[in-house]
Amino acid sequence: MKILITGGAGFLGQRLARRLLERGNLMGKPITGLTLLDVVRPPDLGDERVRAETGDIADRSVLERCVGADTQAIFHLAAIVSGQAEADFDLGMRINLDASRLLLDVCRSLGHAPRVLFTSSVAVYGGTLPDVVRDDTALNPKSSYGTQKAIAELLLCDYSRRGFVDGRVLRLPTISVRPGRPNAAASSFASGIIREPLNGERAVCPVSGDVRLWLLSPQKAIESLIAGCELEQEALGTWPVVNMPGLSVSVAEMVDALKEVAGEEVASLIDWQPDLKIEKIVGSWPGAWETSRAEKLGLAADRNFSDVIRAFIAESKAA
Amino acid sequence: MKILITGGAGFLGQRLARRLLERGNLMGKPITGLTLLDVVRPPDLGDERVRAETGDIADRSVLERCVGADTQAIFHLAAIVSGQAEADFDLGMRINLDASRLLLDVCRSLGHAPRVLFTSSVAVYGGTLPDVVRDDTALNPKSSYGTQKAIAELLLCDYSRRGFVDGRVLRLPTISVRPGRPNAAASSFASGIIREPLNGERAVCPVSGDVRLWLLSPQKAIESLIAGCELEQEALGTWPVVNMPGLSVSVAEMVDALKEVAGEEVASLIDWQPDLKIEKIVGSWPGAWETSRAEKLGLAADRNFSDVIRAFIAESKAA
Repeated sequence: MKILITGGAGFLGQRLARRLLERGNLMGKPITGLTLLDVVRPPDLGDERVRAETGDIADRSVLERCVGADTQAIFHLAAIVSGQAEADFDLGMRINLDASRLLLDVCRSLGHAPRVLFTSSVAVYGGTLPDVVRDDTALNPKSSYGTQKAIAELLLCDYSRRGFVDGRVLRLPTISVRPGRPNAAASSFASGIIREPLNGERAVCPVSGDVRLWLLSPQKAIESLIAGCELEQEALGTWPVVNMPGLSVSVAEMVDALKEVAGEEVASLIDWQPDLKIEKIVGSWPGAWETSRAEKLGLAADRNFSDVIRAFIAESKAA
Repeated sequence: MKILITGGAGFLGQRLARRLLERGNLMGKPITGLTLLDVVRPPDLGDERVRAETGDIADRSVLERCVGADTQAIFHLAAIVSGQAEADFDLGMRINLDASRLLLDVCRSLGHAPRVLFTSSVAVYGGTLPDVVRDDTALNPKSSYGTQKAIAELLLCDYSRRGFVDGRVLRLPTISVRPGRPNAAASSFASGIIREPLNGERAVCPVSGDVRLWLLSPQKAIESLIAGCELEQEALGTWPVVNMPGLSVSVAEMVDALKEVAGEEVASLIDWQPDLKIEKIVGSWPGAWETSRAEKLGLAADRNFSDVIRAFIAESKAA
């Protein structure tokens, strides 16, 4: 069983790689090779099953180097995040759309229909949303990132329907709490307002407290990626897109959870500085959606956000 | 006011060109130039305002020849029809997706945000549909054509949101009765079962009588294209996609209308020969959708299908 992870130097990519190596198998088969592809050099994981590849994922020859007739599972995590895709339209189109299509085309040319998992996002929704966003709610993205993700979903569905790949899409909630530093995602603050105060640093919250987010912890995200990859095509029926369970938490509730876990003083390190550009993008995303289908497929959210913060603290201490 | 019609040699393109020349103006301005672009040579319309261009619409230089800083309205009708896009995946992707994107990019590079109208289709829907398909019903296309149209819609919406074009999409019902000969559209029979019998020829109906279609006459389609182009961006709000009104008619009801207008003998020229490939595609399309928004925008359907047949007969006699 050989696996490719695109975005393999990224936060989720590295974490997924470590978890897969630890597990030793996927889809019931031993993992014999794990290629990590990224535009920056993936870190050395000290495991001889790992091959690190550096290159531009929108370059066909790079993908052809990483996907072979023996590649049986692909986790396509590489992406230009929402804020950056809004700021640099061409870059977003090239990585989020063109590279995704190229990956599907390279798989198609090999002819063995490998399993391909795309991650998508709350950002595919937007505009006037019903009270409860459901699987059959139309996509009306209000960001270029959301548009590009929605297009990649449609492509993956059609390539799957035609038998070119055995594809599936997981629409992930916003991941919080991410370790590390802020990034160019419009939702970067959703980790920053927890992580920075816990590190004794000030953090800016660019949206108001009543903005509702749909959140998933990194731990649950990795579990979901593996479970999603292991789902049989039949289980997905005629629609291989899954709206992932999450926690619906307002920003004020996130801060309350931080107070509960770490105290008032820590929470007072948050500076409320509205940024209309960010509020416009993040406010267009659903703060929750219907998840019964995902639950039937065995996918699950975190129990509550305080526990998510506690897990982040425990992990930071262990690291 | 200069206008471009892609697919200008096609049935709708020619008809739209004639109507625009007859009108003499669009969006309140006199029409001074009308470029017809197609892969085959558009017919000579005997009007000095018309420029006929032949070329591959997926070739940037061809589009750059046809779209200039003075192009104020573009009707993008060129497409590979459903049956052909299913049979030739690469051709469908190239024309229905790549060329549509290229057209948007050429407009973007000019910087004057021309008005751009894309036509889309019932084929963007599919899968398990609710009883009433609404504007906010998710797209789950079950054909490559539908997928490519859905992607083109998303692109146009984002290019519009960013101000690169002043775009709008009309999702057209199946056009019936088309004159001429059968084509490679999965819905070709929706004209053939009326047109051929009226011409004394046998016609094959590849789907069962209870299949419900969402129909629009050529006359109403042309009126809608012009009205849709003339809609102000503000009227469209944040979602420039319009589900066009149509007639919801079962195939059996279409045949009943043919009997009513032309008699039993004419209707007996239909041979019922099920074709599962066609039934699968056409059966995935909605047989109706909610149209109140389109009606508020001043767009209208035909009154009944018998009148549509009568108009076709009258027009055929006049030609």
